[in-house]
Amino acid sequence: MRYALPVYTTQAETFPSAAILHPRADSNTTLRFNMSFTVEQRGNLNALNYCLFFKNAAGKYISPFHDIPMYADESQNIFHVVIEVPRWTNAKMEITTKDALNPVKQDVKKGKLRYVANVFPHKGYIWNYGAIPQTWEDPSHKDANTGFYGDNDPIDVCEIGTKVCSCGEVIKVKVLGILAMIDEGETDWKVIVINVEDPEANDLNNISDVRRLKPGYLEATVDWFRMYKVPDGKPENQFAFNDEFKDKDFAIEIIKSTHTFWKDLISQKVNAGELNCKNTCISASDSPYYCSADEAKAVVAKTSPPGKEEAIPSSVDKWFYFERK
Amino acid sequence: MRYALPVYTTQAETFPSAAILHPRADSNTTLRFNMSFTVEQRGNLNALNYCLFFKNAAGKYISPFHDIPMYADESQNIFHVVIEVPRWTNAKMEITTKDALNPVKQDVKKGKLRYVANVFPHKGYIWNYGAIPQTWEDPSHKDANTGFYGDNDPIDVCEIGTKVCSCGEVIKVKVLGILAMIDEGETDWKVIVINVEDPEANDLNNISDVRRLKPGYLEATVDWFRMYKVPDGKPENQFAFNDEFKDKDFAIEIIKSTHTFWKDLISQKVNAGELNCKNTCISASDSPYYCSADEAKAVVAKTSPPGKEEAIPSSVDKWFYFERK
Repeated sequence: MRYALPVYTTQAETFPSAAILHPRADSNTTLRFNMSFTVEQRGNLNALNYCLFFKNAAGKYISPFHDIPMYADESQNIFHVVIEVPRWTNAKMEITTKDALNPVKQDVKKGKLRYVANVFPHKGYIWNYGAIPQTWEDPSHKDANTGFYGDNDPIDVCEIGTKVCSCGEVIKVKVLGILAMIDEGETDWKVIVINVEDPEANDLNNISDVRRLKPGYLEATVDWFRMYKVPDGKPENQFAFNDEFKDKDFAIEIIKSTHTFWKDLISQKVNAGELNCKNTCISASDSPYYCSADEAKAVVAKTSPPGKEEAIPSSVDKWFYFERK
Repeated sequence: MRYALPVYTTQAETFPSAAILHPRADSNTTLRFNMSFTVEQRGNLNALNYCLFFKNAAGKYISPFHDIPMYADESQNIFHVVIEVPRWTNAKMEITTKDALNPVKQDVKKGKLRYVANVFPHKGYIWNYGAIPQTWEDPSHKDANTGFYGDNDPIDVCEIGTKVCSCGEVIKVKVLGILAMIDEGETDWKVIVINVEDPEANDLNNISDVRRLKPGYLEATVDWFRMYKVPDGKPENQFAFNDEFKDKDFAIEIIKSTHTFWKDLISQKVNAGELNCKNTCISASDSPYYCSADEAKAVVAKTSPPGKEEAIPSSVDKWFYFERK
């Protein structure tokens, strides 16, 4: 089953606001965010069956984990980022590392769709949140900085630009710095980036520029990650380096190391465990997980056809208040 | 032209989230929020022609400024509030004091729909914002507390409950305190209230309870009002009482005084100036501005019929960052 319905781009002044972060499934199931990648919706938005599959410019299904190049421009250190959670939203959308073709889906906890709680003064995620493709925080690698092993996911990103991105959008970013979060005994790096298309991208070249031009944002970022699971009864998260951000160069070295781990993964030098490494663009000589376009189509065809969106429960709107130390 | 289309209530667990704050005009033009009042949409949401007219339980058009009783329960000091701006939204929706029947419309500045800027860390309005009907901050009355005259509007309210209300919703509230804002040389009280239906309403009885149970919210409220016009090139707002909130009893006295001013207005004891005092529920002996149901229907019929919503410009999503003193 194929979809080639009308597309829209994200350039227009009247791009739907934060209120409409996903396309309407009933009018449009394919979204083209830039010249290179599109997403196709399956199932019903805000339902358990919802997922977003990715295609490349040729219209071939791809894995956003494995088939989107990490670099958009290696010589300029411009990286690709797959946006999972648009700013100000709560649904924990993520690249499914264990499903074939790694579609973006909403995380499920105890059979229910997961929404991240609003911790005052924050409303939803306070950046466009996503991941860098072709990276992997290897759970068998003990990070020398944090003393903890990797969390088994691609490396996470906080994009701090003006635009509210869409779920599934693939953007090009400059790296500005990195925060070493420790979440329940795992290393979980958070890379701070800005969309190269942001009006202020030229002024933001390192973590100190964020501190100067967006006062309060870095402190809020640490506070957000420290507190965000507390409403669910979990402890506050911790950070290495005395809660401080490391700079751009440090961040790029960390990203490169996670790209090396991913290479070992995709080439089956290390055991993938439960991870699904099916891909359609890595040559079969480099990856034993290569699959054909027809096999990829069959994966998508097995999922629910696109349908109407469901409402988000009003309980997601609750604001939680905590004294800070 | 009348509309009596399907209605929905706000009790359901699946009440549309913050993402859908206005009903879909194409499916539903009448909203019943409680047993007493409904709103009818005219024009296109997010367009200049959009407005919300109010009806009472009998289906008669009313003015939300003049015809909704100030008290929901006078013996318990429970007040009505008309919600204008739902929490986390930016469109400056307000009761039009100068239009016949005072429909809720989006404020217009220089021919453009007005959206309040996001001042970091705030996203849109941080409470459900609205007004108490049958109150008026008399511009000829110099407030003894602030030394400034009234702003010519009904008294403003910040509702701090869990639920994200809808534009045009009429709720019943408990009063908790008040902030004396001074905005460009005018007194502009902000009453802090909580919806009586909020799960925590029983625990919140005075301003000190807000400080204890919602730490940071009062400080954020002052910061929000101080800064919200700065992105538009205006100066920071000021406050009387050294930026401190006054308690519940003080607040109720202020509200009562603005009700007295309104009584003088509606009975034409004072000159209404540009204000439109047309009403359908104050007896003609009490108000020379009384109009018939047919006249009210004619007012509504002259406005645009309901149509499809427009998109909110993505420029509204910008976050502005300022150092605080």
